Amino acid sequence: MIAIDWGTTSMRAFLLDKGGTVLEQRRLGLGILEAAGHFATALGTAIDGWDDPLIVMAGMIGSRQGWIEVPYVDCPAGPREIMSALHGVPPLEFDGRDVWIIPGLRALDPAGGCDVMRGEETQICGVIDELGCQRQTVCLPGTHSKRASVMAGRVETFATAMTGEIFELLCAHSMLGRLMSPAREPDSDAFALGVIHARRDGDLLHHLFAVRTLGLFDVLSREQLRSFLSGLLIGHELNDLPVDCGTVHLIAAPSLLVAYEAALRLRGHAVRAHAEVAAAHGCYRLASLAGLLPQWGSA
Amino acid sequence: MIAIDWGTTSMRAFLLDKGGTVLEQRRLGLGILEAAGHFATALGTAIDGWDDPLIVMAGMIGSRQGWIEVPYVDCPAGPREIMSALHGVPPLEFDGRDVWIIPGLRALDPAGGCDVMRGEETQICGVIDELGCQRQTVCLPGTHSKRASVMAGRVETFATAMTGEIFELLCAHSMLGRLMSPAREPDSDAFALGVIHARRDGDLLHHLFAVRTLGLFDVLSREQLRSFLSGLLIGHELNDLPVDCGTVHLIAAPSLLVAYEAALRLRGHAVRAHAEVAAAHGCYRLASLAGLLPQWGSA
Repeated sequence: MIAIDWGTTSMRAFLLDKGGTVLEQRRLGLGILEAAGHFATALGTAIDGWDDPLIVMAGMIGSRQGWIEVPYVDCPAGPREIMSALHGVPPLEFDGRDVWIIPGLRALDPAGGCDVMRGEETQICGVIDELGCQRQTVCLPGTHSKRASVMAGRVETFATAMTGEIFELLCAHSMLGRLMSPAREPDSDAFALGVIHARRDGDLLHHLFAVRTLGLFDVLSREQLRSFLSGLLIGHELNDLPVDCGTVHLIAAPSLLVAYEAALRLRGHAVRAHAEVAAAHGCYRLASLAGLLPQWGSA
Repeated sequence: MIAIDWGTTSMRAFLLDKGGTVLEQRRLGLGILEAAGHFATALGTAIDGWDDPLIVMAGMIGSRQGWIEVPYVDCPAGPREIMSALHGVPPLEFDGRDVWIIPGLRALDPAGGCDVMRGEETQICGVIDELGCQRQTVCLPGTHSKRASVMAGRVETFATAMTGEIFELLCAHSMLGRLMSPAREPDSDAFALGVIHARRDGDLLHHLFAVRTLGLFDVLSREQLRSFLSGLLIGHELNDLPVDCGTVHLIAAPSLLVAYEAALRLRGHAVRAHAEVAAAHGCYRLASLAGLLPQWGSA
């Protein structure tokens, strides 16, 4: 089968064998913003040369701006609830193949607000069988980091933190960014200082100004300020982790994995790292649960 | 005399009579970034036609990027401490006139960090005689909002919040900004919702994502999201106000004054608004205390 993780600005495509092992993967810049209006053509380009009859897609491709809007599934939800809401793309729209879109999740909170994810639920499904029954936490760092509380094979609730987007904005466009030298290697001491600084009294809006004062009084060099800011923001994201969050499972690209693992250990959390390929495993798991694979196996 | 509030990206010049009343004021885009390397020429342009022999300047003009770097005065400090550290510009550098730069303030915190201001200390000096002896708070909202704790005529300590800069960044460059319609009139209901939302559990990095979900589920219109974000950020800034902060004195331009006054009242604070012209009054107050005015009066 073919698994697709199709986000706003990029896409990853995976070719899997019958047992769910990834044979080949591709990363393309072809996000849904760029592919809008010609999703079938874009998909054709992405999987060129792969002729498997089953395609399972996760991510923003199921959003209002995507191919077909697939309603969110409400938490608590696990692979079974998500699988029941898989949404088929009409065969005529793509090459006669069997194409499915995985729904996102919605978490309602007691105060009447809510949070949403599209794509991360599939990555969580890719590791959920390894988590056991106790409450544990899955962190998916990124532009919009997701932190999910998982128990007994279901996502109980989750929350988004705009950590990555704020970091990029501040580096590219803020007064703080002008104080920094272009990124070289991350500085682990300055990063740790930021993670610890985030535990102080005061709001993030105040803590951010420390980037200026630490630079002004030469406590940190222009090279170190970027790592300090990264630690400060990740530290603030982790401030929301409940004390009883259990082992924290990280799913991320290698560079983010290193940073978050360091920050979580500084805060005394037990951590386990998972590969980003969890997205492909999640698609496979859901397709298997939906009974899509046997048909394909016998084709 | 002439009072100048010279910031990073703009400058205000005031012509005062002998009693300290503002006769005329000018606002120019000529900040220290633009004027770098030719401060005397820029000053000449700003005060063209005003030939008073005494000029007192506050703000970033006394920073490392300014005309002359004037060392910070440490808190606690009031008009007397600030006045003692006034720094003269050599007469030959500007037209033979008597030109002074007011130092900024630095607040050390017990954890070893510090905060700084340049310009706001002068605005505080402009209203400090009206505050009495009890602990009160002066808020100076803006790109980098300052919140100062004042008691018995001295600034005890203060803190910066990057509220205005983060708001502008998010509107101009973030995913949230793309969800908003261009600003028309502020929406006071959406603003209040943001101020209240800021009191919920969770970090700002998480709360920001509410702009997305409230838009996604049509709780707020594209026009209202901007006001909600403004309320959310100002609310976060105010989360750091101590319970015993006393009356909150606001010094700001009219539009910010309205927003902060509404937010403070929603939080149950006693508020008093002051005009932005406090900067001119502060320069006058310090010049008077330094004995600069009598010389000028008898000239």
